[in-house]
Amino acid sequence: MDINEKVVTADGVRSAAKRIAGHALRTPLMENEFLNDAAGGRVLIKAEVLQHCGSFKYRGAFNLISQLSDGERKKGVLAWSSGNHAQGVARAARYFDMPATIVMPTDAPALKVEKVRAFGAEIIEYDRYSEDREAIARPIQEERGMALAPSYDHPHIIEGQGTLALETVEDARALGADLDAFVICCGGGGLTSGCATILDEVSPRTDVWISEPEGFDEAWASIRDGERRHADITQRTICDAIATPTPGKLTLPIMQRLVKGGVTVTEDDVGRAMVFAFKHLKLVVEPGGAVALAAILSQKFDGRGKTTAITLSGGNVDPPLFASILEQHG
Amino acid sequence: MDINEKVVTADGVRSAAKRIAGHALRTPLMENEFLNDAAGGRVLIKAEVLQHCGSFKYRGAFNLISQLSDGERKKGVLAWSSGNHAQGVARAARYFDMPATIVMPTDAPALKVEKVRAFGAEIIEYDRYSEDREAIARPIQEERGMALAPSYDHPHIIEGQGTLALETVEDARALGADLDAFVICCGGGGLTSGCATILDEVSPRTDVWISEPEGFDEAWASIRDGERRHADITQRTICDAIATPTPGKLTLPIMQRLVKGGVTVTEDDVGRAMVFAFKHLKLVVEPGGAVALAAILSQKFDGRGKTTAITLSGGNVDPPLFASILEQHG
Repeated sequence: MDINEKVVTADGVRSAAKRIAGHALRTPLMENEFLNDAAGGRVLIKAEVLQHCGSFKYRGAFNLISQLSDGERKKGVLAWSSGNHAQGVARAARYFDMPATIVMPTDAPALKVEKVRAFGAEIIEYDRYSEDREAIARPIQEERGMALAPSYDHPHIIEGQGTLALETVEDARALGADLDAFVICCGGGGLTSGCATILDEVSPRTDVWISEPEGFDEAWASIRDGERRHADITQRTICDAIATPTPGKLTLPIMQRLVKGGVTVTEDDVGRAMVFAFKHLKLVVEPGGAVALAAILSQKFDGRGKTTAITLSGGNVDPPLFASILEQHG
Repeated sequence: MDINEKVVTADGVRSAAKRIAGHALRTPLMENEFLNDAAGGRVLIKAEVLQHCGSFKYRGAFNLISQLSDGERKKGVLAWSSGNHAQGVARAARYFDMPATIVMPTDAPALKVEKVRAFGAEIIEYDRYSEDREAIARPIQEERGMALAPSYDHPHIIEGQGTLALETVEDARALGADLDAFVICCGGGGLTSGCATILDEVSPRTDVWISEPEGFDEAWASIRDGERRHADITQRTICDAIATPTPGKLTLPIMQRLVKGGVTVTEDDVGRAMVFAFKHLKLVVEPGGAVALAAILSQKFDGRGKTTAITLSGGNVDPPLFASILEQHG
């Protein structure tokens, strides 16, 4: 069966949860009184910045790579990514003692490049404003016979990333909380479609919302309009992790079926959310990982009277950018 | 019995653990491969920056205030502190619906002042370079009949703070780790003496070490020399949280009996440790809360071949200072 014909299922997310247990971390679900006050409701924070490699991407990468055959592992794995998925793939490949090649933009955050290198992966750089990463990556992949680890549009990636919502629902219930809504930082939709798939089964009354940055809010536009929309990826943005051109072939239909609403936040909203996390949560959150928090703090998502879970989905941000955001919004 | 004649015991720490359960958080014990590599051993990180109010101080404050009588609660509680203990006392007092008055230096970090105020406490400011905080606080306390919540030199504070080590040992064992050493950020010695007391019973083979900043390393000097040493508290330091003049009457004898060694770190060591926590742990750590991490990263504490636990004891740092540290060491 072609992998792209495999359907993403809640059972697939449950199997992924078993596969990653003991490898990915069960990150804490936090609550903060200042955030509850600001939201006018109860907010549960999935602190995924504390995951290995500082983002949820390790869940999907480990779930995919752990299912490769011995023969595939010998040939290695290739991925393209601005850096969070790259780190996840590089670390999982190192765990399985296999080669990894990552195609990364020349303007990827230095911290992300440094960590991919520390995990021993080969890095191939490209200019994301003038070059097509897929056109660079495909010949290398084919020549070496490497497995491809897409950053979102693959059932094993989506199911692995969806484990985040399974943990969130379980841990929320342990706190006596039943989620009215789940607000997710959205790029290509891997995390969103995986989370939405499992939520639909284990917590069907929870509304799934996505948050995106201005200029890169093509996922909600595509869902809302019922047809694929594209972002201009030559635009500059601080939210590199979710500056995706368009939702995936697999992720879009799932999101169309299961996502209830979308919010677009500005870079100022994002900066203020990062400073809030710094001051009150003591967590370092990167811009792309702060858009769900920005949605609730800016009240563009209305959390009043609700119990809402949000993802803090990544924390890999370069010191100079973080310093300038602290200076501007601190 | 005079409270100061009450002996600090491991049973007292266990009772405190029961008292604070469900009120203070059981903060995660983290591990990071980059830190293990840098240390040349295994390092378990007690991420106490994620505690309520961003530091371990809430443990002691809650343990003390929860033991006050109804009559005492009506009259309220008074404390002096540069801000972490202040927040702990203010939050615990709010929980028990009682007044709190905090005497804080005029140059306390703005974030600390802001959060003490947010918890509804009255703040009285003093100039720490020219005024004696105790001389300001005592008449107010006596006039109003308020209970005193010392920041370290009180059995209930020490026992409450010691719960941090009890959790650390339990969670380390769940990971299959037996601690060779425990390195603690040390100011007046409340956290150290509470942790050392419980460690001596539940993990007697664990060596207790303290880390202090240059210029404020009077605790280890006092232990080493067998007589009380004093720091010049008019010196400027970024480590406001642990810029204490001298160890406590209760804490010093405990530390003399149970502390194995001391390390002095520089402000550069501290800045590098804060940047390490930013990059690799995604945690915001304040200077005074980063001295144990600084000890291990600078190799002034030798963690090679050992399993060492460290405290990240506080995370309340103002954005401009954090930005300047990122710029200098990032």
